[in-house]
Amino acid sequence: MASENDSSFTMETASVGVIGLGLMGGSLALGLAGKVRRRIGLDSDPKAGPLALEKNVVDEVALHLVDLVVRSDLIVLATPVRTILATLRELSKIQISDDKVRIVIDIGSTKADILKEMDALGDRYDPIGGHPICGREVQGVRFAEPALYKNATFVLSPASHTSPRALAAGRRLAELLGAHPLELAAADHDRLIASTSHLPFLAALALVQTAIKIPSAATLAGSGFRDTSRLASSNLEMMADILLTNRGHILQALEDYTRHLEEIAKSIREEDEAHLKAMLAEGRRARQELIGPSAPEGKR
Amino acid sequence: MASENDSSFTMETASVGVIGLGLMGGSLALGLAGKVRRRIGLDSDPKAGPLALEKNVVDEVALHLVDLVVRSDLIVLATPVRTILATLRELSKIQISDDKVRIVIDIGSTKADILKEMDALGDRYDPIGGHPICGREVQGVRFAEPALYKNATFVLSPASHTSPRALAAGRRLAELLGAHPLELAAADHDRLIASTSHLPFLAALALVQTAIKIPSAATLAGSGFRDTSRLASSNLEMMADILLTNRGHILQALEDYTRHLEEIAKSIREEDEAHLKAMLAEGRRARQELIGPSAPEGKR
Repeated sequence: MASENDSSFTMETASVGVIGLGLMGGSLALGLAGKVRRRIGLDSDPKAGPLALEKNVVDEVALHLVDLVVRSDLIVLATPVRTILATLRELSKIQISDDKVRIVIDIGSTKADILKEMDALGDRYDPIGGHPICGREVQGVRFAEPALYKNATFVLSPASHTSPRALAAGRRLAELLGAHPLELAAADHDRLIASTSHLPFLAALALVQTAIKIPSAATLAGSGFRDTSRLASSNLEMMADILLTNRGHILQALEDYTRHLEEIAKSIREEDEAHLKAMLAEGRRARQELIGPSAPEGKR
Repeated sequence: MASENDSSFTMETASVGVIGLGLMGGSLALGLAGKVRRRIGLDSDPKAGPLALEKNVVDEVALHLVDLVVRSDLIVLATPVRTILATLRELSKIQISDDKVRIVIDIGSTKADILKEMDALGDRYDPIGGHPICGREVQGVRFAEPALYKNATFVLSPASHTSPRALAAGRRLAELLGAHPLELAAADHDRLIASTSHLPFLAALALVQTAIKIPSAATLAGSGFRDTSRLASSNLEMMADILLTNRGHILQALEDYTRHLEEIAKSIREEDEAHLKAMLAEGRRARQELIGPSAPEGKR
């Protein structure tokens, strides 16, 4: 639990340790430049740290996990989900001599498994789950951009012993990045995101798997194909971890998706024009509702 | 067959009649401004003609089909596919008093049915099938933009009695719009486009159908969802006609697609990490091959 002196936590005076200097962690750290006391980075790739320093993504690089933890008031876990889980287990084993209770937030794309591990962190940490709904299909700190989080929804999922202090820090972190904080229980997050992010990825994956089998298909791949398949270029490790830590919700979404595809195929096979048109009209309406009226539609 | 005087055909001195002043026909006509002798428009919506005149999309509006045909050297069919089929049947019935052989090109998204109808057009017309691989999910002449066709692949599918003159006109039309002409047999076009355009549309449709059933899903719909689902907002009449005139190839593509989805689901269900990662890696590689190395990846 947060001790008395911890209630004085402010992002502006905090040392922020970021574990994982990829596109997401790097962009987060870059977006905090000048907004926190200092930014400390750590990455398993020995080339990431020097590049992050060179690009002003971080102010300092930590030597190892304990070094980063000792120097940080707020720890951001920005690796693939299963590395986040392993790091949380490491954190609970570290012997810390000071009496500071460190805030820990992750930015992983599934929340239930992470929150379970956060609940087991012990009282030396004040954890909160996070998931910013943004990204790009490029990898590495060299693509870090401070505006990546701008206007994104930043989900905050409290653990069972998340303090008001950690929740406020999560909100402030989101705001400093230009994102919009949204509190959501882990189970709800994982169910919704299975349909809005994990299923789109799998739909894109199966699409490229299908098209690549057709010789010369590339000749006729226009911007419609490019956009629909974009997520298939996502980071492999990140996606594998997501798929394996949100299996139940994803399998349910895939089942529903396949059922809709079968209904569509049936109406085409049977030339059921009325039903086909009803589905198409409903699809247009549904997308409008899901995306919002403001979305400008690009050229394809 | 083309008579002697017809070999003198040039786009620059041609009167071009455009049937269907929607986004596609309107943008085509607008892109020809100043590049042909005159542009004549016709649309079933009485409001489209006046708006097209006001926006300099066309120079003149025809009263009806016969009026447009009489005044045109080149006729562009830019309506949904089944309306193109009906218009081709109308064309063959028209009694024309001059001895001009008019070039007819369509820009419909499926080619086999249209080419069959073009073959039955008779010797008063010199037909060629066309399909520019571009578009947007907005409708109507008010969205017409001269650059819509720029850098798009413009498929040209010869009918059995397409003359070199019509083929050259098709190529020239594409070039004047900034597009890249590509000759492709109708059957090949329809097979390829089923995977690169019609399947992506159906993948997007089933995606919004699935997501809309999850209350509050819109909360977590980011740009990944927006792009993957974009085609679900396509023009309803246009898509219904496409689906119903390319049924065989589309059903085959859907079958392959569903098989890939089932293989993905199986590897997630069984936590077969090695196979899952192999599919993800292959998906990234396949997309790169289908899209080309130059495609810049957007923010999601």
